Amino acid sequence: MLEPEKQVLLAHGGGGELTRRLLAERVLPKLANELLDPLTDGAVLARPGGRICLTTDAFVVQPLEFPGGDIGRLAVCGTVNDLAVMGAAPKALSLALILEEGLAIATLERIVASIAATAAEAGVVVATGDTKVVERRGGDGMTITTAGIGELPDGLELGTGTIATGDAVLVTGAIAEHGLAVMSARKGLSFRTELRSDVAPLNGLVGAMLAAAAGVRFLRDPTRGGLAGVLADLAEQTRRNVEVEEDAVPLTPVARHTAELLGLDPLTVANEGKVVAVVAPGDAEKVLAACRAHPLGRAAAIIGRVGERSDWPLVELLTRAGGRRVVQRPYGEELPRIC
Amino acid sequence: MLEPEKQVLLAHGGGGELTRRLLAERVLPKLANELLDPLTDGAVLARPGGRICLTTDAFVVQPLEFPGGDIGRLAVCGTVNDLAVMGAAPKALSLALILEEGLAIATLERIVASIAATAAEAGVVVATGDTKVVERRGGDGMTITTAGIGELPDGLELGTGTIATGDAVLVTGAIAEHGLAVMSARKGLSFRTELRSDVAPLNGLVGAMLAAAAGVRFLRDPTRGGLAGVLADLAEQTRRNVEVEEDAVPLTPVARHTAELLGLDPLTVANEGKVVAVVAPGDAEKVLAACRAHPLGRAAAIIGRVGERSDWPLVELLTRAGGRRVVQRPYGEELPRIC
Repeated sequence: MLEPEKQVLLAHGGGGELTRRLLAERVLPKLANELLDPLTDGAVLARPGGRICLTTDAFVVQPLEFPGGDIGRLAVCGTVNDLAVMGAAPKALSLALILEEGLAIATLERIVASIAATAAEAGVVVATGDTKVVERRGGDGMTITTAGIGELPDGLELGTGTIATGDAVLVTGAIAEHGLAVMSARKGLSFRTELRSDVAPLNGLVGAMLAAAAGVRFLRDPTRGGLAGVLADLAEQTRRNVEVEEDAVPLTPVARHTAELLGLDPLTVANEGKVVAVVAPGDAEKVLAACRAHPLGRAAAIIGRVGERSDWPLVELLTRAGGRRVVQRPYGEELPRIC
Repeated sequence: MLEPEKQVLLAHGGGGELTRRLLAERVLPKLANELLDPLTDGAVLARPGGRICLTTDAFVVQPLEFPGGDIGRLAVCGTVNDLAVMGAAPKALSLALILEEGLAIATLERIVASIAATAAEAGVVVATGDTKVVERRGGDGMTITTAGIGELPDGLELGTGTIATGDAVLVTGAIAEHGLAVMSARKGLSFRTELRSDVAPLNGLVGAMLAAAAGVRFLRDPTRGGLAGVLADLAEQTRRNVEVEEDAVPLTPVARHTAELLGLDPLTVANEGKVVAVVAPGDAEKVLAACRAHPLGRAAAIIGRVGERSDWPLVELLTRAGGRRVVQRPYGEELPRIC
């Protein structure tokens, strides 16, 4: 028997008095701001000073709470980071919750509080939202979809179009921690306390990188598909080979060990607090220094370079042992429901 | 055994090669446009000519396809209509799909085609998106979350703040058809072929209403919670009584009959192609005429008026029988998963 004060009921999604009370008592007080509070059909934002960037992500991570974060922090960071790597300053988010009947109200409240805290950390406002309820299932609890808008300064054009042979490939810190932390929590592994998700809002770090030098050509956050996925995209879109030194890729011993235990290649594991950048060779050291001066970029490293044009562009890893191996985009389901 | 060419697999959500192919082959060709095609982390839109309106909705309707529409058409219209009733011209949508393992690829393709057709009808572009896959459950198939941005002309301020005693309350057509059509389809009722959802993009109709007269004070689409929910909000927010004539509320005989069979009050049933407007008394006939001249507003009617201020504001229905009854916001779960 479900209790309406302790658990989410299907009736909480009907759009009536119970919906109004759930939001008014449990959700809105934590997110309060002048855009959201009127509870109109949408939020009105001032006329922006640049072009508009629009992005969205759906989050289905299991478990909802994991070492270093939760689905709420993940949702805010995922959308903020997508805007940041476009070069846009994140301004406002929308928040759509799909709750499963039976979800503990206390869990909902913790996750909404985490959303509010992460939005404040990133300097964005949760401007509008929607809540629905679906029947009880496997006890998944909730999915969150955020969309975000940011302002893109006129003249800033990041992308693969200007990438040239010799450009440096940089990553802002140790890889694979988000995916490994979630997988460890899911499997109940004993070392799970040591490994924490890197989930963090990257707009501050990206701002520092862009301010450091004009030669930043391309930015991407290596989430699903990991570093390997971003490098494969880079090669495919630029029609150039990409060469990466295995030894240069930041990876903590605990992450390396965990990946080995789980049988995963860290290159394909999701990150939620890292950026891959392609930078003109003359500016690479400046951008690296800017990263290292930022709390979220202390372990940044130049990991490789963009090679020649090719009809069959490849990502090659120069291995620790002195060999070469081709890095491929992961095929399918290595890590389902990681974000 | 699931077949990757015919059904969605968990692996389709991993962010690897299978994800890329599902999108490239099944989804993107139908939605193709220059904002979406680069498949970057977000879409870049031109600097807008007014303030920005941001809105979002999650859609969990069951069944996915129903007489008169489907979850895809519903998602586009729901977001377009939220922008329209804010007074904003809808410009771009984001589209987040959460697919259930086992969903037929053919169903996904039909719904994506419906999204594309409805977006074209509304004159908006699907500018960016995301796709995730979750484990097989009750066979629900999919949920869709859309967010939308629109341009709000400077100087246009719709809302309850300027509503005054004597203002007319207008509805743009017959009520309750969306909710009744979905419920009928769900229950497999024999009359389901007669009743169709009213789901439609309302930005054209709203544009005609706003152009007809300056006295449009407030607009709202009566979705979850129905007409009763909007009228309850109106009374609560204006601290005024609202009086509605039962006989004046447009309702088709088939909808009335279906509501009786299902034991539902049509006033509380969701609409997805109607607008409730509050209009200054001197402009009400002009706005009514503009509605009736539009294909989606032919059955528009003035259904009541805004009354005096009150400490306990009520919505009163003047019944066909000559009595009065208080209209309340529905409490909970009369119609779960209707949108």
